[in-house]
Amino acid sequence: MEEKYNIVVGQSGGPTTVINASLYGVIQEAISARDKIDKIYGMINGIEGFINGNFMDIEKEMTKEEIELLKSTPSSYLGSCRYKLPDSMEDSMYRQIFEKFSKMNIRYFIYIGGNDSMDTVSKLSIYANRTNSPVKIIGVPKTIDNDLVLTDHSPGFGSAAKYVATTVRDIVMDASVYDMQSVTIVELMGRHAGWITASSILARKYEGDNPYLIYLPEVAFDVEAFINKISELLETKTNIVVCVSEGIKDKDGTFICEYSGCAGVDTFGHKMLTGCGKYLENVIKEHLSVKVRSIELNVNQRCKAALASKTDVDEAVMAGKYGVKSLLAGETGCMVSFERIPGENYSVGCRLVDCGQVCNQEKVVPREWISDNGTDVLKEFVEYAKPLIAGENEQIIIDGLPVYVYRKG
Amino acid sequence: MEEKYNIVVGQSGGPTTVINASLYGVIQEAISARDKIDKIYGMINGIEGFINGNFMDIEKEMTKEEIELLKSTPSSYLGSCRYKLPDSMEDSMYRQIFEKFSKMNIRYFIYIGGNDSMDTVSKLSIYANRTNSPVKIIGVPKTIDNDLVLTDHSPGFGSAAKYVATTVRDIVMDASVYDMQSVTIVELMGRHAGWITASSILARKYEGDNPYLIYLPEVAFDVEAFINKISELLETKTNIVVCVSEGIKDKDGTFICEYSGCAGVDTFGHKMLTGCGKYLENVIKEHLSVKVRSIELNVNQRCKAALASKTDVDEAVMAGKYGVKSLLAGETGCMVSFERIPGENYSVGCRLVDCGQVCNQEKVVPREWISDNGTDVLKEFVEYAKPLIAGENEQIIIDGLPVYVYRKG
Repeated sequence: MEEKYNIVVGQSGGPTTVINASLYGVIQEAISARDKIDKIYGMINGIEGFINGNFMDIEKEMTKEEIELLKSTPSSYLGSCRYKLPDSMEDSMYRQIFEKFSKMNIRYFIYIGGNDSMDTVSKLSIYANRTNSPVKIIGVPKTIDNDLVLTDHSPGFGSAAKYVATTVRDIVMDASVYDMQSVTIVELMGRHAGWITASSILARKYEGDNPYLIYLPEVAFDVEAFINKISELLETKTNIVVCVSEGIKDKDGTFICEYSGCAGVDTFGHKMLTGCGKYLENVIKEHLSVKVRSIELNVNQRCKAALASKTDVDEAVMAGKYGVKSLLAGETGCMVSFERIPGENYSVGCRLVDCGQVCNQEKVVPREWISDNGTDVLKEFVEYAKPLIAGENEQIIIDGLPVYVYRKG
Repeated sequence: MEEKYNIVVGQSGGPTTVINASLYGVIQEAISARDKIDKIYGMINGIEGFINGNFMDIEKEMTKEEIELLKSTPSSYLGSCRYKLPDSMEDSMYRQIFEKFSKMNIRYFIYIGGNDSMDTVSKLSIYANRTNSPVKIIGVPKTIDNDLVLTDHSPGFGSAAKYVATTVRDIVMDASVYDMQSVTIVELMGRHAGWITASSILARKYEGDNPYLIYLPEVAFDVEAFINKISELLETKTNIVVCVSEGIKDKDGTFICEYSGCAGVDTFGHKMLTGCGKYLENVIKEHLSVKVRSIELNVNQRCKAALASKTDVDEAVMAGKYGVKSLLAGETGCMVSFERIPGENYSVGCRLVDCGQVCNQEKVVPREWISDNGTDVLKEFVEYAKPLIAGENEQIIIDGLPVYVYRKG
């Protein structure tokens, strides 16, 4: 009989709507590989928690029903961390981690996360290689920002995009009821990459519908040009909805949200840092006599389980499963990646890419998918994003509210 | 053969998730009373638009499918206004309106709206009475704030409450992933009445769960006591979520959100008016060394159709239908009101109340439904609100996005 080993899974970085779906995929695939895998451990609060001795035996501590609920529970069930492993492989931290692996009979480590988590996967696999450790390590991508390279897209983005498209459509409906000119500025997540903000184009019910303007961080933002654009639109339109990424910058690279900190201080003398949406609201108020408001969509973009994309959830599960399969096939130091399969209907397949090439890189929206004047997104983006938001994920609802699985803190 | 008359319906005040469901009820009931009602007119942008000659022939301009979509479309399909009729009945405005009614063979007017709209219903019915006009006028309630008197609750509130409960539950999940102390302040709608904010109690997954603190405008807010409370909680809790109403005031009646305007000015010298959530975020930052952020839920509270309460939608339809029935029965000057029918299972019936007693009144959360120290809501509120958020409303979804009906602007 082949010897059995244990697997450990961790979640890291900011939570998303579907990071638990990947955890579900990992657990299911590990269970179905019972001949090779014995225990399924979960790191509590990622690698940082694991170092401090925090972990759980998943099958012992979770019921089957609870495991099923992971598919519709937002946030990170296992808890998360933002922890960067030391750059020097001589650091005793590495020895400690691998001693723990050894002591717990762990041969497989799967880490679900974004850029920084892939850095962890990369470093640990390099260390394992150098020390001839048999432990294999694979990363499963997760980010609402969709900024991971070497993959068509990342689990988490589809649901964020669906939330944004639906919500901007709702806001446009809400903003259009009065027969009185108004400007609504919606600030969306994405500090460096505009994928989430670009998704607001999907909110349009017909060509030429709101949001009339979409600004991504990929193109330098000019406040004067913005005022002129709004002023021009007000000549023919009643209600204008504008979507801006929180990360829009001017041509010198200064974030527009930093403009607002120049003179604003509160009663404590603190700088009142507000987002670029609030700043642009004030700019329009100052220059044009029109009703204006700004809305920040905030953390809902990464945790609104009711609007999760079924496609995204299914793919997150698939990525988790593929990660376990890859570990069992002896792969290490890689991230699971999605490849779009050419053809009329959308479908993706999984493959592995080198984690070392993924970490510390950033994928932005291609310039050619953005209009020349930088105020709109083009049909190439729509074709890319549309299939990612398809399908409604099932939720268990009791008394009108979603049932989630959680560790009681 | 009995003579047929026309009916006109209008929507007024802020939009809600279910105000179009009431419009649907009005249209359906009017159609089924074909022997008495000929045309169904819609006022475009409420009474103000109607005065300016803006209206539509609903059955001529909408398909059956479009009428069905009203049940799942947020915002005001007919457009809205914020318009107060003159106090003096001698004003020529009244004569003009009734001349229009007469010219268009309108005998029935149904107005869907909140406090101010009931003022319109009241005034027009008094004028009709004084001038012996045969036109009957009925109001159908609508407000997310739930502040209308003489009714158990108002259509629009249940969906707002469901959105808030679900979203705060999501935010709590999102706020609990790191093993690091944090405070999250969620600012909710409700300037004078705390019904929406109180609904955040439904977000708790178990007794003693977040949100740990809930502050309504019904109880004077004390900033120092707030700091002490947070400080005390931080001794035993890791992640604290606090829900505050935008309208919380100190004991002198000053809005907490006004505190922030004292010194904050932006680059234009404008006061940077932010909500009380942002202000309290800064207060906590100043006094306690803990990670803190604030989130404003904003207009989503009144337009998130994906989270509409089925109970709320059904009741909104019922109120619209009851309004038409009442008009045909010869009633006027009244608002449709909900009465909870005693019994084990929740159910409501409709009755009529005098509009004159509804307008310019405000129903707040009873003091005895709030804890003595004003930091929590009690089980009486839970029992009241729980049935109102029950059931998921059906939506038509195409390509992952909700289909709405709208007038192209």
